[in-house]
Amino acid sequence: MARVLLTGAAGRVGTAILGGIGADHDWRLLDREPPTGDLADYEYYVADITDEEALQSAMEDIDVVVHLAGDPRPEAPWDSVLANNIDGTHAVYEAAVEQGVEKVAFASSNHAVGAYETDRKPHIYRTESDYRLDGSELPRPKNVYGVSKAAGETLGRYYHDMHGLSVVNVRIGNLTKGHPPVDYERGQAMWLSYRDCAHLFDRCIRADYRYEIVYGISDNDRKYYSIERARDVLGYQPQDDSAEHD
Amino acid sequence: MARVLLTGAAGRVGTAILGGIGADHDWRLLDREPPTGDLADYEYYVADITDEEALQSAMEDIDVVVHLAGDPRPEAPWDSVLANNIDGTHAVYEAAVEQGVEKVAFASSNHAVGAYETDRKPHIYRTESDYRLDGSELPRPKNVYGVSKAAGETLGRYYHDMHGLSVVNVRIGNLTKGHPPVDYERGQAMWLSYRDCAHLFDRCIRADYRYEIVYGISDNDRKYYSIERARDVLGYQPQDDSAEHD
Repeated sequence: MARVLLTGAAGRVGTAILGGIGADHDWRLLDREPPTGDLADYEYYVADITDEEALQSAMEDIDVVVHLAGDPRPEAPWDSVLANNIDGTHAVYEAAVEQGVEKVAFASSNHAVGAYETDRKPHIYRTESDYRLDGSELPRPKNVYGVSKAAGETLGRYYHDMHGLSVVNVRIGNLTKGHPPVDYERGQAMWLSYRDCAHLFDRCIRADYRYEIVYGISDNDRKYYSIERARDVLGYQPQDDSAEHD
Repeated sequence: MARVLLTGAAGRVGTAILGGIGADHDWRLLDREPPTGDLADYEYYVADITDEEALQSAMEDIDVVVHLAGDPRPEAPWDSVLANNIDGTHAVYEAAVEQGVEKVAFASSNHAVGAYETDRKPHIYRTESDYRLDGSELPRPKNVYGVSKAAGETLGRYYHDMHGLSVVNVRIGNLTKGHPPVDYERGQAMWLSYRDCAHLFDRCIRADYRYEIVYGISDNDRKYYSIERARDVLGYQPQDDSAEHD
């Protein structure tokens, strides 16, 4: 079993991951909120994501970091994303290098590329469109939250190139529990089911890779993000499709 | 004459620009250091680049901002580039939107893409190589200074897409006065002469564009950065070539 540190464990993505693969790895959790419910059963660090000392301690003997911590709000103000998302991600990578962590999976976001849609919606949200973003494109954020996620991806590039960490950035789509968003074409096109989310991060923990940017969505019939790279490099095999819930 | 605010005016790039086109525009200067020498002849603001109030005041009735301010050291530590380069560039764009500025030319850097060279040097520094970066590639910084410059480029993308500013990012090469670096192939390949630097930023002030990433180098015989985009979009016509100084 891989020894995995999950930052931001108490958030929505963390909940999806632990719900699916909580028994499959040797987890250590970190969040700035104290544990509630099932989270209390895990080894747990309560710390801010910019707390370098806590990060060093939390990463001792860790193989893989799944880094979710940060302000998750698309409308988050600059000062918050600067501190929590940009500075926080830098702190995670610094500690990872110091502690000899092998891999980091970073929760990036569809918001890193949201402005590609501006002139193309709603057409690209529909099945007849073959427009695809594949992760090789430059960021185009629609908000400063997206700017901060793009900066996190570039930090990962630096730590891969110069410090040898394996890094995968997952541009997470619209994660909802049970069924895809209703009456929201964009959300249906980028839907990520809870079980596909858990499986995708399981592949991020197990697969071999160097530096990757992949899209984290289910195998939706209507999509404008390619999942080919996640399939090829990570072995991602999504089971859900928002069209099957119409 | 365009009304231009030059931030970081007292630095090396500012000196090259004002030395070449100091009489061609209606300049206002900003630097955290007080003016010395000829700089005292200009309207001049002494302020930190994160000082939002000073930026608002300095941008009143300004058409174009040439944003050079920031920690210029490739080896600068994270805390400095986070504050001066990332937060500072955000502050500049916020003030520019508020004050109705039309264009921002941002001093990005070759360090935003320095790690592309890692497995390819010294071959790509030589005339027989046709390897070219053209500005469409994702950032690959070799240092956190380069990470900060890439983040500045992404901020520009956001302010262009969502706030309508015209933005050009100039990935400045190796700017030296008089002659190119001696016995330094990399520096010769990315040499930017003072007069080509001034001319390039003159084109950034005068040309029409939307969002661009261009390389700022002279027309060096040995080069691995393309200057085609700067020629096509900005009308850049460099006069110097490091090979003519061997």
